[in-house]
Amino acid sequence: MKTTTIKDIARALNMSTSTVSRALRDSYEINPATKKLILDYAEKMHYSPNPIALSLKESRSKSIGVIVPEIANNFFSQTINGIEAVAAEYGYHVVIFQSHESYEKEVINTQHLVSRRVDGLLVSLSSLTTDTRHFEELVERGLPVVFFDRIPKNIRTFKIIADNFLGSYQATEHLLEMGCRKIAHVTSPSWLSITKERLGGYQQALEKFGVPFQENYIKYCEHGGMVTDEIETAVQQLLDLPAPPDAIFTASDRITTGCMSYLRRQKLRIPEDIALVGFTNIAVADLLDPPLTAVTQPAFEMGQLATELLLSLIQNPEQEITNEIQCLKTTLTVRASSVQQATWRPS
Amino acid sequence: MKTTTIKDIARALNMSTSTVSRALRDSYEINPATKKLILDYAEKMHYSPNPIALSLKESRSKSIGVIVPEIANNFFSQTINGIEAVAAEYGYHVVIFQSHESYEKEVINTQHLVSRRVDGLLVSLSSLTTDTRHFEELVERGLPVVFFDRIPKNIRTFKIIADNFLGSYQATEHLLEMGCRKIAHVTSPSWLSITKERLGGYQQALEKFGVPFQENYIKYCEHGGMVTDEIETAVQQLLDLPAPPDAIFTASDRITTGCMSYLRRQKLRIPEDIALVGFTNIAVADLLDPPLTAVTQPAFEMGQLATELLLSLIQNPEQEITNEIQCLKTTLTVRASSVQQATWRPS
Repeated sequence: MKTTTIKDIARALNMSTSTVSRALRDSYEINPATKKLILDYAEKMHYSPNPIALSLKESRSKSIGVIVPEIANNFFSQTINGIEAVAAEYGYHVVIFQSHESYEKEVINTQHLVSRRVDGLLVSLSSLTTDTRHFEELVERGLPVVFFDRIPKNIRTFKIIADNFLGSYQATEHLLEMGCRKIAHVTSPSWLSITKERLGGYQQALEKFGVPFQENYIKYCEHGGMVTDEIETAVQQLLDLPAPPDAIFTASDRITTGCMSYLRRQKLRIPEDIALVGFTNIAVADLLDPPLTAVTQPAFEMGQLATELLLSLIQNPEQEITNEIQCLKTTLTVRASSVQQATWRPS
Repeated sequence: MKTTTIKDIARALNMSTSTVSRALRDSYEINPATKKLILDYAEKMHYSPNPIALSLKESRSKSIGVIVPEIANNFFSQTINGIEAVAAEYGYHVVIFQSHESYEKEVINTQHLVSRRVDGLLVSLSSLTTDTRHFEELVERGLPVVFFDRIPKNIRTFKIIADNFLGSYQATEHLLEMGCRKIAHVTSPSWLSITKERLGGYQQALEKFGVPFQENYIKYCEHGGMVTDEIETAVQQLLDLPAPPDAIFTASDRITTGCMSYLRRQKLRIPEDIALVGFTNIAVADLLDPPLTAVTQPAFEMGQLATELLLSLIQNPEQEITNEIQCLKTTLTVRASSVQQATWRPS
């Protein structure tokens, strides 16, 4: 695109570039009539200061980068809305990238965002990321980075998570209270922070009810549910067990809906044959057949808090990071998918 | 963030900046031993060429900007995945912005993207955009812009749409074949291109069946369904008519699910009391209660085609734009929400 530069204006008006530049900066050294002439011409030519050059000079782009596994996911799109709400308030632009659950794409996105001089990064790790050196280096070199939801263990910065342990504990406890004793858990890759936290809550609830933990009731989906096959294989393996589960507790939007879809195609009745509880922010949980019992994360609030902390790091990069991990409460909403019809009444 | 520059390397190695610069460009003028020394040190210091400075010089950023109303929408998130697939293939980065159906945000996003020197823009208009001068100016100044789905009438460039007319015709025809005669249409703002195209298909189907068009069966949601209230008010006004509809044909994800949710809360049975067909790419249409009859747009393909055309404009900005509007076929999937139980069999 042809953009108008200070040189173009100077040439057209037969003035020096320094006069034009000073007029555009509203300098007192230029007389008002000349200033008006220059400003009018600049406006006519759609002149706008080159913000990349400006940002090189000021070393602030007023942009923050966001890297999430995927935006076609209710949890992440709600988080992004929270991020944008706070960023807009402080005059920051938000640049969004998807890793598509790929480690390589995450690394490329990171390099690109940094090369475009964002002032800070908000990241939720891809499900295939086991090596986080690309972020460690940035943090060491002083770029503010805040992680949310899927966080690395060893990088010292702010991290915002939902209370995955408690959310998972409550979901499992609810299924146990409904009489289920063979509760399967279909979840994200084993190495993700959220997976470990949720497994912990699940185990603690079983323990409270004196139900032994069984490894073969746990299924990990390495691509976080992006690949339908891995969800369906996991569910089928559970159904093939000598003692198939009487309930499934699922992690993430896609694993939940993928699981529900597969159970229905197998003509299994939910919850009569098998109960279902999802750790999901799916917007239409109450319109599903049956309405889905769900642990919901405060996604919008998580995005807001992560952004506030990132902006505070951008303003004051030298600050002491206390209270490194901040944990937001989840909500369990009980619907028909986990409660036998006889006992369930919609509120 | 502290980044290493060519100057830093030159100072540290006691060489001239031009020697360092030529070594980093792998120039034959620098002897291999010196080159190795410089490259090793550059690597150690995490030196990377400054791509913003490079892009100012080369005037190509290898980035394309995308502005969509919202990403928490199955149609747009699927479109973005199509965009990213093609962009990745050609080595382009995709920078995503949301207008949140706001004209002002769309204008600000546009300015920001242009100031960040994207090589081209992909746009679907916000539902509140009636003035498109911010895009007209860019196109006049030579920036490649391609529109998809919600397109402006008067800007000369490539535009990709779904066959909204035919999709809407088929949905309405299906409802008429099912015996419905009082078919309401809850849709996006009246000024959007998609709204006019869909209304046209709806009217033509009515005409074919000799059913008179009734203005009071048409409800426009000015915020495209972002505001739940406007959907619910529209549906309630329809239910309050002297001859309330026996079917509703809805546009967009949110209008569809908002409408379904409201009908259910009013204890109306779908389809017995009122049939429902949605123009929507919602991923869980078959898991809803009842499974939803839907007109689906080829969202992924639309994103792919829009990106291919944009890249061709970036490569060759002077090309003659023939075949300005390209139209992709939609698919009607019939499910239980529009078919009385007695006659419907899931496939």
